[in-house]
Amino acid sequence: MSRFWSNTVKGLTPYVPGEQPKLSQLIKLNTNESPYGPSPKALAAIASANTDALRLYPDPNSDALKQAIAKVHGLNPQQIFVGNGSDEVLAHAFLGLLKHDAPILFPDITYSFYPVYCNLYDIAFENVPLNEDFSISIDAYLNKNGGKNGGIIFPNPNAPTGRALSLKNIKDLLDGNKNSVVVIDEAYVDFGTESAVSLVNQYDNLLVTHTLSKSYALAGLRVGYAVGHPELIEGLERVKNSFNSYPIDKLAMAGAIAAVEDQAYLQKISQAVIQTRTELVKSLDQLGFETIPSSANFIFTKHPQHDASKIATSLRDKHIIVRYFKMPRIDQHLRITIGTDEQCAKLIEALKEIIN
Amino acid sequence: MSRFWSNTVKGLTPYVPGEQPKLSQLIKLNTNESPYGPSPKALAAIASANTDALRLYPDPNSDALKQAIAKVHGLNPQQIFVGNGSDEVLAHAFLGLLKHDAPILFPDITYSFYPVYCNLYDIAFENVPLNEDFSISIDAYLNKNGGKNGGIIFPNPNAPTGRALSLKNIKDLLDGNKNSVVVIDEAYVDFGTESAVSLVNQYDNLLVTHTLSKSYALAGLRVGYAVGHPELIEGLERVKNSFNSYPIDKLAMAGAIAAVEDQAYLQKISQAVIQTRTELVKSLDQLGFETIPSSANFIFTKHPQHDASKIATSLRDKHIIVRYFKMPRIDQHLRITIGTDEQCAKLIEALKEIIN
Repeated sequence: MSRFWSNTVKGLTPYVPGEQPKLSQLIKLNTNESPYGPSPKALAAIASANTDALRLYPDPNSDALKQAIAKVHGLNPQQIFVGNGSDEVLAHAFLGLLKHDAPILFPDITYSFYPVYCNLYDIAFENVPLNEDFSISIDAYLNKNGGKNGGIIFPNPNAPTGRALSLKNIKDLLDGNKNSVVVIDEAYVDFGTESAVSLVNQYDNLLVTHTLSKSYALAGLRVGYAVGHPELIEGLERVKNSFNSYPIDKLAMAGAIAAVEDQAYLQKISQAVIQTRTELVKSLDQLGFETIPSSANFIFTKHPQHDASKIATSLRDKHIIVRYFKMPRIDQHLRITIGTDEQCAKLIEALKEIIN
Repeated sequence: MSRFWSNTVKGLTPYVPGEQPKLSQLIKLNTNESPYGPSPKALAAIASANTDALRLYPDPNSDALKQAIAKVHGLNPQQIFVGNGSDEVLAHAFLGLLKHDAPILFPDITYSFYPVYCNLYDIAFENVPLNEDFSISIDAYLNKNGGKNGGIIFPNPNAPTGRALSLKNIKDLLDGNKNSVVVIDEAYVDFGTESAVSLVNQYDNLLVTHTLSKSYALAGLRVGYAVGHPELIEGLERVKNSFNSYPIDKLAMAGAIAAVEDQAYLQKISQAVIQTRTELVKSLDQLGFETIPSSANFIFTKHPQHDASKIATSLRDKHIIVRYFKMPRIDQHLRITIGTDEQCAKLIEALKEIIN
């Protein structure tokens, strides 16, 4: 604590990301990265952009990237906002679209950055508990505080549970909540969930966020985006242009454009993850684990006879890292990223040794 | 204006960066980029980092980059904060270290992003007018409001004037202002100004910011940093970790480390800019321009007989772009980035035609 800190800083409890160990030779299943590399076309585009032209600022508006994203979704660039990872996009959305008098709503078990943003920007929030099976209840959101809220946000599929809502559920939420912004954080949507992007032309209060860090295998490049009504996007642009004019560097811009344009590669590696997930869940079933149905590139699982934190520690001893959250309701679960088939086979071998 | 915007967004007047024209064949002297490319070692390091490992998140703490920067300045990594351009570093400094009850102080003519940050974060500020010759008066800061302020920030050399204060001046300011943070924004320090980084071990309230966008010729890569007491740095880290865990992507990290380690190249291209600046000012003198002594990679100049905005428009017609600010006290000045000798010769030819 320093006397020079603002009151804002004094009150912060920063987010703690999953470990990025500096050791190699680990099987890293803790931060939901892709086990596959990015599109070769993305690497080629980056190589082409790695020139003396780096002396110049990037396009502050990232027009070419917005166009590429808009094209993939059949939208126009005025419906797209881009940022330095979807975390930055979400940060601007909290300050620009979710800071109102009424508390915003999000699940008790969800992406743990949401309360951190609220803390940073002094935004009131209330948690809406997940159902017993960790599913999200749309009615609980619509009924909360007599239907009055400053906004609603959750991931679909949710994290760290991996459980998804149907597009019908999202539509019901939007039909019942027209006076505040609904943010659907679709970081994991490409692994088997219907995207709400198809609804942005119908609902002027819907913002959908995506990232290139998971399905596009570009966590190292830091690019995320939001899709929504042009007025919502303009609100985000105003915050961004009051914070940092050029958040997307030239190399990230080039790589992201090529990655987004290579939808065939995205499909290929997303399908590979889904297939491995199916096999992994079967193997875990055989070991007695209870796994929540996952639509993400991770699974959330527990073993009725074995303490989750002890399993995590034992896996670590065997050079496999998974994510453990010491939090109410989920302190007996592990979140495990889907690796390659080979990595998952090693995980199952290790788990066999641990629980026997 | 949208009913979904927060009050914060409604009240914003975003920063407008200098134009990044999509036309080529322009002589671009408007955003203070380097006319030279970045260190070849930076390009090589980026090429080496452009691999499948982009699937993984970068080190959230950017430890290797902090170490490289600390080494150059003879400091330790706990005294270094890094961000997505110095604009992001400044944004976090405003929220984390400059938001207090008393207004912060900065010059009436300075980097126009400062009032934008204040607006974004609801920080009270007061301007301290520059002297008639556009120099900064330390006494004016020390005497303002009976010596009570929420912080002080200005660039050294100042922008858009290019005029520098001596290290003695900065020391006097720090000796007279011990109860709030003093931020010296040294974006242009490498073009002939003494750096206040040498003072950070003596003053626990001094924060110095640097960028790789100007002297390092890496505006396209988006890396900036702050140097200061570990407690100030910790305050910035807390804000950053409540905003975006991974602001520096893997390619930017690799390029920045190599650039910072190549001090010989930095010296070489900075000296080249200084030499061209000297020649350019001489040529402008001969045309009757009045140029403020510059310690930056730009000059701030006016012609007593010719309207600045008209000159800027005429230059644009000749495919040369410079920066014109339609603002009180400086609406007869032009800010011109130092280009190559060849570009500056073309600028002088064009100006000759315009004023004759």
